Amino acid sequence: MPLIQTDALIIGAGPAGLFQVFELGLREISAQVVDALPFAGGQCVELYGDKPIYDIPALPACTGRELTERLLEQIKPFATAFHFDQLVSHVARRADGRFDVRTKAGLQFDCGAIVLAAGVGAFVPRTLKLAGLEAFEGRQLFHHADRVPAAAIAGKHVVVSGATDQALAFATRLCAAIGRRAPEAPARVTLVHRRDVFDAEDGTVAEFRNACAAGALHFVAGQPTGLALDGDRLAALTLLDATGATVSLQADTVVVLQGLSPKLGPLADWGLALERRQVHVETAKFATSVPGIFAIGDVIHYPGKQRLILSAFHEATLAAAGVAGHLRPGDDGPLEYTTSSPRIHKLLGV
Amino acid sequence: MPLIQTDALIIGAGPAGLFQVFELGLREISAQVVDALPFAGGQCVELYGDKPIYDIPALPACTGRELTERLLEQIKPFATAFHFDQLVSHVARRADGRFDVRTKAGLQFDCGAIVLAAGVGAFVPRTLKLAGLEAFEGRQLFHHADRVPAAAIAGKHVVVSGATDQALAFATRLCAAIGRRAPEAPARVTLVHRRDVFDAEDGTVAEFRNACAAGALHFVAGQPTGLALDGDRLAALTLLDATGATVSLQADTVVVLQGLSPKLGPLADWGLALERRQVHVETAKFATSVPGIFAIGDVIHYPGKQRLILSAFHEATLAAAGVAGHLRPGDDGPLEYTTSSPRIHKLLGV
Repeated sequence: MPLIQTDALIIGAGPAGLFQVFELGLREISAQVVDALPFAGGQCVELYGDKPIYDIPALPACTGRELTERLLEQIKPFATAFHFDQLVSHVARRADGRFDVRTKAGLQFDCGAIVLAAGVGAFVPRTLKLAGLEAFEGRQLFHHADRVPAAAIAGKHVVVSGATDQALAFATRLCAAIGRRAPEAPARVTLVHRRDVFDAEDGTVAEFRNACAAGALHFVAGQPTGLALDGDRLAALTLLDATGATVSLQADTVVVLQGLSPKLGPLADWGLALERRQVHVETAKFATSVPGIFAIGDVIHYPGKQRLILSAFHEATLAAAGVAGHLRPGDDGPLEYTTSSPRIHKLLGV
Repeated sequence: MPLIQTDALIIGAGPAGLFQVFELGLREISAQVVDALPFAGGQCVELYGDKPIYDIPALPACTGRELTERLLEQIKPFATAFHFDQLVSHVARRADGRFDVRTKAGLQFDCGAIVLAAGVGAFVPRTLKLAGLEAFEGRQLFHHADRVPAAAIAGKHVVVSGATDQALAFATRLCAAIGRRAPEAPARVTLVHRRDVFDAEDGTVAEFRNACAAGALHFVAGQPTGLALDGDRLAALTLLDATGATVSLQADTVVVLQGLSPKLGPLADWGLALERRQVHVETAKFATSVPGIFAIGDVIHYPGKQRLILSAFHEATLAAAGVAGHLRPGDDGPLEYTTSSPRIHKLLGV
């Protein structure tokens, strides 16, 4: 893959990261954005996409999705490159003082500064913790319903692990193909969860229970404890069921849909000073303890910090001055006002 | 006048003061607002009411007036009392530890905390600096076009000082009554400004020059240097004209319309520590050096400070925690989120 060069790399495409693009743009600092999620908005869309937020200044009520759309509209003049589904796995100082940043999926960046706007962390799928299972990722083990290839389903014994809406809906959908005797139908679908209580919408649960009652879908209440191999293939999961008995469940394909969990990932390895498990920053430029790495939003702590979107906007603005000063020493002062600056009007195309 | 009691008194009804009402309201702290201007919005309306601001987060373009209206809409649930045209003239600690705040026009407040959101200062009319002139305020001297009583105009020699839109339009309007030989017409209207160049719209200047050319209106380019009395009445202004000659100008009524100038007023007497002529605050709670007085927005300085509306919103939020902690010790933590808190939903009526 080519090396991607940019002035600043923003880690996190939530409201903080999006407004960071804007403030860097006003200072004519190019930025690119990576996020572990497949879309912009972060927590704001993931956790309360359709719920109103009431404390965004001058927006009396605004859903997480609407806020995200408004911010994307605001940063349009800067034609920013976004890299979704990218979990940052490596951050190191280059010999020339810039940063080498790599993602798990193989992207590599060469950037002058980093702004960490990672919120409560990268939202990554919760895994099924079973020794040896990870090795089957992408072949027999999957964590996204829409990324399971047809070949891993047709004629296969599919085990779905989870109690989420996604897990129940996915298992129910697979069974419909069995009912139709379609060629893409799995041989058998089993949903595994430790107990017969689900964390899903009533309608989803009802459809799931109907499919089970019809015999098309199987449910096992139990805790996966191990796996059985057939050569280098995964052959079965071992479960401890509710009665204390050990059950072996044939498994050609395992789809884990246990929800997303925020992870700070390799942050601890970057050498950043932490405080109360958050990144420590000073509040003049929102600089971390590593020169060239700035941090804003829910990932940081400082005296008086409140985890509010409106504070992240302020932090992004001061961090932009910090990035400017890091990239162009001496150039960290306040900006002209957007209302009156011809330079800014030209940048924004207004 | 009755003593007005409130938890918090906010000085300044600009965007910072308006959002301060909201953040205090979420904490169930009652607030009242005073401003020297006759309307809400402060600088935002006074200086760029109809000009777009581009850096309010999630509002890609928004005029000062629109921003003010949006904030007024957002704070509606708190039914806040506003006191306009009120210049704060006195702030002192009461025996019970609360504050005694008085305005020049005679209001008196008893409040538990003060949030100073005074921007670049109270916008007060620029005066004509002439020894002894001030004594005629309200009788023969006026600073607002719409507050000059009819009796100070009818049959009088009126001198208007200023080069603003307001000054030229007011002088031109008075002359129209002379043309109509109306009973309310002044005897003579003279506009005084140090030179024949005006700081007004082209249309206003054209109408003014037409009235001068028609002989209805008089213009004197000169610098007022003194006044002449007739007993205890103001009789004339003395001017130094462009040729260096001294001119005496009969003046029954002087209307000074030289624009507004921001003044920090008696702030220097409150005992607040200042830094670079701004109020010094710490950035955890935006507390000043006087316990119980908090300050936000353009009036403050701290490391990294940028004079931006979006920063004032953050400052107001942290100051609200500070006010809460001052009024109810121990209660200065973060709030519940507005998206999920039933208590906040009830307060906002949503």
